[in-house]
Amino acid sequence: MFELLKTDSATQARLGRLVTVHGVVDTPVFMPVGTQGSVKALDPRELEEMGTQILLGNSYHLYLRPGLDIIREAGGLHRFINWPKPLLTDSGGFQVFSLAKIRKIQAHGVEFRSHLDGSLLFLGPKEAMEIQRALGSDIAMVFDDCPAHTATPRELRAAVDRTLRWAAECREQPRAPGQMVFGIVQGGGQAALREECAKALTSLRLDGYAIGGVSVGEAEAEMMKAVEYTTPFLPADQPRYAMGLGTPAQLVELVARGVDMFDCVLPTRVARNGTAFTRRGTLSIKGAACKRDWGPIEEGCACFACLRFSRAYLRHLLNVDEILGLRMVSLHNSHLFLKVMEEMRAHLEAGTFAKFRRGFIANYVPSRRVLAARKDGPFSAEETR
Amino acid sequence: MFELLKTDSATQARLGRLVTVHGVVDTPVFMPVGTQGSVKALDPRELEEMGTQILLGNSYHLYLRPGLDIIREAGGLHRFINWPKPLLTDSGGFQVFSLAKIRKIQAHGVEFRSHLDGSLLFLGPKEAMEIQRALGSDIAMVFDDCPAHTATPRELRAAVDRTLRWAAECREQPRAPGQMVFGIVQGGGQAALREECAKALTSLRLDGYAIGGVSVGEAEAEMMKAVEYTTPFLPADQPRYAMGLGTPAQLVELVARGVDMFDCVLPTRVARNGTAFTRRGTLSIKGAACKRDWGPIEEGCACFACLRFSRAYLRHLLNVDEILGLRMVSLHNSHLFLKVMEEMRAHLEAGTFAKFRRGFIANYVPSRRVLAARKDGPFSAEETR
Repeated sequence: MFELLKTDSATQARLGRLVTVHGVVDTPVFMPVGTQGSVKALDPRELEEMGTQILLGNSYHLYLRPGLDIIREAGGLHRFINWPKPLLTDSGGFQVFSLAKIRKIQAHGVEFRSHLDGSLLFLGPKEAMEIQRALGSDIAMVFDDCPAHTATPRELRAAVDRTLRWAAECREQPRAPGQMVFGIVQGGGQAALREECAKALTSLRLDGYAIGGVSVGEAEAEMMKAVEYTTPFLPADQPRYAMGLGTPAQLVELVARGVDMFDCVLPTRVARNGTAFTRRGTLSIKGAACKRDWGPIEEGCACFACLRFSRAYLRHLLNVDEILGLRMVSLHNSHLFLKVMEEMRAHLEAGTFAKFRRGFIANYVPSRRVLAARKDGPFSAEETR
Repeated sequence: MFELLKTDSATQARLGRLVTVHGVVDTPVFMPVGTQGSVKALDPRELEEMGTQILLGNSYHLYLRPGLDIIREAGGLHRFINWPKPLLTDSGGFQVFSLAKIRKIQAHGVEFRSHLDGSLLFLGPKEAMEIQRALGSDIAMVFDDCPAHTATPRELRAAVDRTLRWAAECREQPRAPGQMVFGIVQGGGQAALREECAKALTSLRLDGYAIGGVSVGEAEAEMMKAVEYTTPFLPADQPRYAMGLGTPAQLVELVARGVDMFDCVLPTRVARNGTAFTRRGTLSIKGAACKRDWGPIEEGCACFACLRFSRAYLRHLLNVDEILGLRMVSLHNSHLFLKVMEEMRAHLEAGTFAKFRRGFIANYVPSRRVLAARKDGPFSAEETR
């Protein structure tokens, strides 16, 4: 189902094509995050217009609300949210370990309390796959144990063991027609554990492999290492997905390290604080510098927001809490993430990726504040991937 | 600038054409409310697609934020918000008398404290016209004294006197190129005062006349009477505008009483509580009845929301606080208001308005809750017209 079209000669970057039940996905790809069945503040037409190929939905959130009965009755998640293109669903593992109050980790899953009403629930490989089968996503993720970046070596070890056991269980569950299942490599920042986990997981012959246990509070350098410890042990002919990442510059660096798929809440999350991404880094549209700035968010950008509105107007909207303000910044940011991926695909095709990467990274000034929003920001229920 | 094309034979309904600097407005017309330079939750493309001819902006709000210097520098309100079609601006009179803390009513205006930061400000006919000149609206409203519906006869009298004096002052102020100025008739529920105010005002030969002092907390019957006390004394060949009104059924009844122009925050305000307007009355999309309702908000409606989404999905979005939910209900409601006006124009053209009116009113079940939202709802700063 995955076709590796080309590998860059100077880096590990890959150009690929992933065929799903609901259509083809060109990789490297960024997946906008529609946690609760909607990419925050955006509508499906806007997502189509900016070239979205695949959306991410979340088992944990959708299981709590609206609940599986509703989505089953709708005929699956595609029809419920009216998104005819591919969907990937997260298994809920990340959310159970980061959002919920865990009561007890058991052999076949986790007993936890809902972050919404405290009700006692159970989620394990069987349940997560059952949910994703009902959602009918094109790609389901295995239910994994995703420890915090503060986990001890002993905890990391236990998480890898559980993740592997659970992945094997997930593999045996019934699936929606044509549904792919991706494994998730854990192991924190430990090279040996990452290698062991990747090797054991790939022996299960799943449809793709994700790098998990990143975007859990670690520094960028650690995140890059976790990826580098993992990719050498993943099969070249299958898709690789770095979960919950990252900034535009990080996406470029991760593509250079051989990652094909990404998802991240950053574009819409920081938009709601009035922060816009550009190719030079981030920009506070709410800031006084934009007060009389009659240019678009980003010069040369062809998104709806940049074609129509000035920074000064958007600043006004954000400052008086008009929804159009955060809508437009969310739109611009998501558009930029998708365009950067599109450009990377074009440069991979043309054999000019390494040059593009150098130029992009030289131009992009990372913002500590935005990295912090990714790492330490309050993980509200609605915002996790 | 106003052409009365046709008067209905069975009612007082009128078909007209208002020519403004930024284009022609077919009347009867509903003006979506963009108080702070944005129709809440909607974008200009959505407004265009639903057939919006003219938007309303607000002097009071825009004067406070972003301030006139910014809008002047942008080249006026049309360019600031990127809306190339006609704009009408309210004078700020209504807001000063309903939102601000009045310190002192003086001969030439009102000294008041901003509802935002308590700063001491002054607004009168001169200032209101200066603001509207800077905004560059196609239609400016005079600065009036708009008393509450609880006002005593003495207070109503004083308000009429002041309103007339101020209207004469407004008339003498410099205007933006081609800008029209509409007078506002006050007089509460008193027939004699309404007549006197209308007659005195029309002697000023302004470009149009509004019925003010409605939508200030009075019951529907009182509102209708206030309109009926006023229209007979307004010139037939000039546009008539009922300020801050109403529900779809009220719009139909007011058109039948000879009113040409309307504005109202209801479509977007109630949408944010999950209430949708239909031709049969209102509907709580958040309600349990929509949980498994796979139909659109309104059968046969061609708005973006109804073409794309089910009530069940929108209910989910509203219940999990996803912005797309209130966006889509705002869009549907605004679309409905505009389509009802469009149909009234078509029926006036065809000579079938009276029949349309009977059918519409018979079908529409008014909701006490929605009438209350209009009358007694908390007038938050962001939501007044």
